[in-house]
Amino acid sequence: MTKPAGRPKRRQPGASETKGHGSSGRDGLGGGQVEGRRAVRELLRARCRGIRRVIMSTDLAADPLVDEIVALAGDARVRIEYVSGVELEELARTQAPQGVIAHAVPVVEADVDTLLAHPRAFIVALDGVTDPGNLGAIIRTAESAGATGIVLPRHRAAGLSPAAVKAASGAIEYLSIGLVAGIPAFLDRATRAGLWTVGLDERGTTSVFDLAVGEGPVVLVLGAEGRGLSRLARERCEVVAGIPMHGALDSLNVGAAAAVACFEITRRRTP
Amino acid sequence: MTKPAGRPKRRQPGASETKGHGSSGRDGLGGGQVEGRRAVRELLRARCRGIRRVIMSTDLAADPLVDEIVALAGDARVRIEYVSGVELEELARTQAPQGVIAHAVPVVEADVDTLLAHPRAFIVALDGVTDPGNLGAIIRTAESAGATGIVLPRHRAAGLSPAAVKAASGAIEYLSIGLVAGIPAFLDRATRAGLWTVGLDERGTTSVFDLAVGEGPVVLVLGAEGRGLSRLARERCEVVAGIPMHGALDSLNVGAAAAVACFEITRRRTP
Repeated sequence: MTKPAGRPKRRQPGASETKGHGSSGRDGLGGGQVEGRRAVRELLRARCRGIRRVIMSTDLAADPLVDEIVALAGDARVRIEYVSGVELEELARTQAPQGVIAHAVPVVEADVDTLLAHPRAFIVALDGVTDPGNLGAIIRTAESAGATGIVLPRHRAAGLSPAAVKAASGAIEYLSIGLVAGIPAFLDRATRAGLWTVGLDERGTTSVFDLAVGEGPVVLVLGAEGRGLSRLARERCEVVAGIPMHGALDSLNVGAAAAVACFEITRRRTP
Repeated sequence: MTKPAGRPKRRQPGASETKGHGSSGRDGLGGGQVEGRRAVRELLRARCRGIRRVIMSTDLAADPLVDEIVALAGDARVRIEYVSGVELEELARTQAPQGVIAHAVPVVEADVDTLLAHPRAFIVALDGVTDPGNLGAIIRTAESAGATGIVLPRHRAAGLSPAAVKAASGAIEYLSIGLVAGIPAFLDRATRAGLWTVGLDERGTTSVFDLAVGEGPVVLVLGAEGRGLSRLARERCEVVAGIPMHGALDSLNVGAAAAVACFEITRRRTP
């Protein structure tokens, strides 16, 4: 593995504050290696965490996103290191880094009580989603739908691997992510805090389009690829809803199901 | 590459008819190599095309889906060839074949006039989606939302690669897929045939949740990853709609956007 000519790994003065990720001083969630143009652009734009370096291929064709990254790096006083396309691929940990990699301070987990205290909380809890691409895609979807936080089980969480970070396309810079010991216990805690808990499962008896979503705080729980919600999580939900299938297949992939459910909940909550 | 002990490649009597894919006698769409448990199960269940062989790893743990594949293969009189896990991985062309591969007659393209003539047509047209995983995921979503067909540009279509087939999870067995010379000209043709044409684009001025979708026939056009709809396709659409973004990011991935838009159109059309 060829290392690009390094500059000292010091934090950038303009980009070293952490904000938007709740209390610090806990273990990071990972997410330090950021690959892909959109993910790196949002890292630089959000300035939520320290950026150690940005590495760019010298072989890139003209592209507005690349120009934006160069300009934002200048604003943030982050120097860009240029390496050959081959060297960049060697440094990459995803299949398509799109010629840009950044190294940043890991994402700090959010405080779960703070997430629950939001008066219009819309928390997406993931009960066993294991594929990093799905994890990242769901974080991106949830952020775009206006969710106020993500909750992952600590022991099973894959963490924010480079593949998850790339699929999230920058959403991890904006959306607070909390870790809990287990999703079923978290659902009890959410119910006690006054949140409405909705599970999404193909075996759900209510249609997701018929949910009586009010303006109050809500948790949406998504189950694992293939297996769906665990029995314990399902039993803790006040409602288990399904997405009506109109074809021959019996399920959507978890990313598509998350998109339909998140935007439907937001549509209902939007005055 | 180790070949598993082969039986003669003849079509199975019970599974050799083609149906559900319109006129035959044209070039196939590909899709002959089917990997992954759900995709192989639906191939066997739908019996829309001839199945040359099913190859299974001898190393699989007990799983209801595997049992179902074995039973369906028995019903269809398709013999299963068992190979070691290592041999199966060597035969695979996707990253996670889940221990099962089938070889089938390629998918036959559907006749586009037949797709347009459906009185309640709901056609999803893809204007330049290039990633096989996205292509497959959108076909799965469209099938589940009750779309009546998919239209792809012939010259740019990646075709149904093993990765697309796996991501479609069997949807290609049920949903008719047509090829056209270009999406803009297809949209003119659809308009002349009386279909309403809706483009999905982040620059759309109407919200996808405010579309006046009636019960009539409709085409939904999705643009390429990153670039969105081409100018020519956008100009041919009667409405260009966007999905309202509620966070800091400016776009969804095309698979998530497809899921939101397809299920919203279906919700509006369902009496």
